[in-house]
Amino acid sequence: MQAAIFENGAVHLVSKPTPTLGPGEVLIEVRMAGICNTDLELLRGYMGFAGIPGHEFVGRVVAAPSAPQLLGRRVTADINIGCGTCPVCLQADARHCPNRTTLGIAGKDGAFAQFVAMPLHTIHLVPDCISNAQAVFLEPLAAALEPSQQLHLTARQSVLVLGDGKLGILTACALRRLVPDLVLAGKHEDKLAVAAAQGVTVRQGTDAGHIAATLGREFGLFDVVIEATGRPQGLETALELVRPEGTVVLKTTTFAPTTLAMAKVVVDEITLLGSRCGDLRLAIASLKDKLVDVLPLVEAAYPFEAFAEALEHAARPGAMKVLVDFRAL
Amino acid sequence: MQAAIFENGAVHLVSKPTPTLGPGEVLIEVRMAGICNTDLELLRGYMGFAGIPGHEFVGRVVAAPSAPQLLGRRVTADINIGCGTCPVCLQADARHCPNRTTLGIAGKDGAFAQFVAMPLHTIHLVPDCISNAQAVFLEPLAAALEPSQQLHLTARQSVLVLGDGKLGILTACALRRLVPDLVLAGKHEDKLAVAAAQGVTVRQGTDAGHIAATLGREFGLFDVVIEATGRPQGLETALELVRPEGTVVLKTTTFAPTTLAMAKVVVDEITLLGSRCGDLRLAIASLKDKLVDVLPLVEAAYPFEAFAEALEHAARPGAMKVLVDFRAL
Ligand SMILES: [Zn+2]
Ligand SMILES: [Zn+2]
Repeated sequence: MQAAIFENGAVHLVSKPTPTLGPGEVLIEVRMAGICNTDLELLRGYMGFAGIPGHEFVGRVVAAPSAPQLLGRRVTADINIGCGTCPVCLQADARHCPNRTTLGIAGKDGAFAQFVAMPLHTIHLVPDCISNAQAVFLEPLAAALEPSQQLHLTARQSVLVLGDGKLGILTACALRRLVPDLVLAGKHEDKLAVAAAQGVTVRQGTDAGHIAATLGREFGLFDVVIEATGRPQGLETALELVRPEGTVVLKTTTFAPTTLAMAKVVVDEITLLGSRCGDLRLAIASLKDKLVDVLPLVEAAYPFEAFAEALEHAARPGAMKVLVDFRAL
Repeated sequence: MQAAIFENGAVHLVSKPTPTLGPGEVLIEVRMAGICNTDLELLRGYMGFAGIPGHEFVGRVVAAPSAPQLLGRRVTADINIGCGTCPVCLQADARHCPNRTTLGIAGKDGAFAQFVAMPLHTIHLVPDCISNAQAVFLEPLAAALEPSQQLHLTARQSVLVLGDGKLGILTACALRRLVPDLVLAGKHEDKLAVAAAQGVTVRQGTDAGHIAATLGREFGLFDVVIEATGRPQGLETALELVRPEGTVVLKTTTFAPTTLAMAKVVVDEITLLGSRCGDLRLAIASLKDKLVDVLPLVEAAYPFEAFAEALEHAARPGAMKVLVDFRAL
């Protein structure tokens, strides 16, 4: 099969053997995939990654010895593959299995390839009403919805989403269904407009200091601030804007150590809550019910042969979602 | 009156006018006070403090124009004095009033003085069965109990208290009533023995790395780790020992910025929860019901005239509680 591999900071398109199926695995022919900021970090060497990246995808089942009813069905998959036997897995939380592999991120070849093999228990059917381009957003949309699975968000709370990148916009659009008055703040008028078109209250500022001052004046301090700027400095702004005994949700995965004014966290009894991948079933229901419109987040689509070009596009500052289309293969 | 003042990193005993009472204030003659690590930080210049420190105290009401029934009663007081009119105060949470002063810490002369004036609404009666030496522990005991007011602690959780200083021991002894199997870890055999004598499971290690390795081997990862080491590095050890989706309670007030591996917090979806002062009523009930024995934490008591000596004693590495006795005045 054809596949993209990351090696020593460069990407190559190579020919590799089609994966052989382990017990309980199904073989998926990838139809479309999305490039995520994590992919760009992996390319830069984060987690010492070498192999096939890619964890946002949709495909068609082409082999399923243990579940023939899946043959030909359109599917996506949970990216965390638990060992299935440890106490964490037995509590149905494979996302946090200490022995897990993660599709295209750690220990498991990913979806920037013609075929990917996944265990049956990770598979989710994609309903016909969700297009391939939409389905690529299921994984990031699940992550955007994850704060609602960790915190009891209510309509009376004041909630701020910081950052108008892909994750900030998805988070604001998704959580607005629970907190209609939530505010999304960022620096880019055009990006904020994507969320505003879906009914999100947006505020623009020229930089972090300006955003903090403007929001503070208009809204005071927030019960919950969801930090999705993708920058380590975002946490500082979040701490400026959260009320005492409030919560800062950390969606930015910063691999560099972050310096933090911990005294403020202690004295104001603030909760910092890490938040990562979410529940694909919830994301599927959300797209099926048209609660979020993900397509305006698509900036470009490239055929797989032009993967290097797609990656370069995705790495441009402020780029929105870049799709990789495998259908010509 | 006689009072201790901190000024430019030094302590002086001075004569000052007895405080005049504002509306709704009562005058308290201090009988005993405790030296806290925060006092030592104030002496080093933290928060640009200059004035009379002291926030752990018990005294007798000697003037109470608006509440004459208090005259002669033994009392202590909440150290946070809210403005009484802001939205935070109106929700009965003066601890987090943005306009608050804090006794002996910020904007309000403290209890290392013959007399202190406090608003009526901050006053708590001290029952006769609680001695002066015990009553000095009410403020730190309330802080030790605070995690139980922020988190739903249950007997089935695995809970670790890190740090065998005063706060760690108080926290372990107090929270053991809710989580009988909690573990206290520290470096000092003699200090851990104080908690062990009250039924706390204790484990000793030579340093942070040794403690993390030993506890990890014996207990695996904990649901809740309460970081009470008093050192910024304690957070690192806490993060090593908390399970994915677990909680680290931050009791250490570090005034220096702390460097943190935030990726671990995000990927493991860990909650960091700042925790500070608590509820004096709960601490009073706890001492009244003999749920915690605080007296073994007393290392020395000095008359107020020897305050400088008392402070020096409290600053010795590993010193337990040093009391200041005003009864000879
Ligand atoms: Zn597992
Ligand atoms: Zn107030």
